[in-house]
Amino acid sequence: MHLTKDDLYQLERRKKLNIINSITGIKPANLIGTVSEENIANLAIFSSIVHLGSNPALLGFIVRPTGEVPRNTYENILANGLFTINHVRESFVKNAHYTSAKFDREVSEFDACGLTDEYLQGFKAPFVKESTIKIGMKYCESIPIERNGTILVIGEVEHIILPDEAVNEKGYIDLEQAETAGISGLNSYYSVEKIASFPYVRVEEVPEFPSLTLP
Amino acid sequence: MHLTKDDLYQLERRKKLNIINSITGIKPANLIGTVSEENIANLAIFSSIVHLGSNPALLGFIVRPTGEVPRNTYENILANGLFTINHVRESFVKNAHYTSAKFDREVSEFDACGLTDEYLQGFKAPFVKESTIKIGMKYCESIPIERNGTILVIGEVEHIILPDEAVNEKGYIDLEQAETAGISGLNSYYSVEKIASFPYVRVEEVPEFPSLTLP
Repeated sequence: MHLTKDDLYQLERRKKLNIINSITGIKPANLIGTVSEENIANLAIFSSIVHLGSNPALLGFIVRPTGEVPRNTYENILANGLFTINHVRESFVKNAHYTSAKFDREVSEFDACGLTDEYLQGFKAPFVKESTIKIGMKYCESIPIERNGTILVIGEVEHIILPDEAVNEKGYIDLEQAETAGISGLNSYYSVEKIASFPYVRVEEVPEFPSLTLP
Repeated sequence: MHLTKDDLYQLERRKKLNIINSITGIKPANLIGTVSEENIANLAIFSSIVHLGSNPALLGFIVRPTGEVPRNTYENILANGLFTINHVRESFVKNAHYTSAKFDREVSEFDACGLTDEYLQGFKAPFVKESTIKIGMKYCESIPIERNGTILVIGEVEHIILPDEAVNEKGYIDLEQAETAGISGLNSYYSVEKIASFPYVRVEEVPEFPSLTLP
């Protein structure tokens, strides 16, 4: 199947939306936790979290401020300066997906979706107790993407909480062991299975005629 | 294990780099194809491709222009205005990983890494023949992230090539069927397996006491 830009724009709106949302491949499944000025814990699923750099340790994600669910998340981050990123585990993809419903501002998605908020002393943003890997973030800045009205929100890593057995001496995190889930599009959830790990590769280590195994 | 920001900065450089690079969860494994002004096909692996919006259909990725491998990719995109995004398949993760070696500018990574370039008429950027899902992109703009010297590169979808059987009538793409791989950190590759698909969720459809199944 070959879809040109014109073909895409002639597709039914929802079908087009789903294709474009899943075309980049597997996306990370994370829950962002925040607290509102009224002290209500908020939780929302995001699939756009991206690594921006390691020194300093910066992560980013995309919000559409005129949109629906992420709006509370973004308002809370601006007001409070802190947020958490929590890996969705295979065992609670359904609960995580429920957070995408448009709950009223006074409802905590933790309560409504059957997840548990927990806190680090001195850090005013809720972690997801049921997550295996959790990150505490400090808000840095917002970069507007004027072309489509979205915003790249940037934060710096302040805390990392993960099980000892999920990380090895090299700092590789085993996502299969951590039962971390992935997302395709807006609706489909995947488990991941480790198939290979390769060292940093130098030109002289690449074989002259690399083999290619296609099914 | 709980690492604070201070703990992180005291870790051995490589270990810290690996942890920060894998902390966001599973990342999409994509190869970006470009052509240099000398007509040499370039191919490089990226794990930072992110969906920015569906109308227009915009995707972005992060480059570190002072860095190593992605430099040629970015120069070619600026010079030529076109690039391709190709899903890495499970069967060729090793070949895809080889593209991260610092080959000289006059070497095509397609040749050196055992992959095949193919072209659409009138579109001057190479697709990866062995990929199941491929996207032809038109460069739109670069947004500098001054905080760490990286750049968010934005492009618009011009072509999508994928097998009929990988997409259903709703526009959901089955990444397991397409054998699309994921990445953790810089070195580890994962296969994906579909575990659930849920419809768009309305507040009134969330059960009053959602169950939570933890192992």
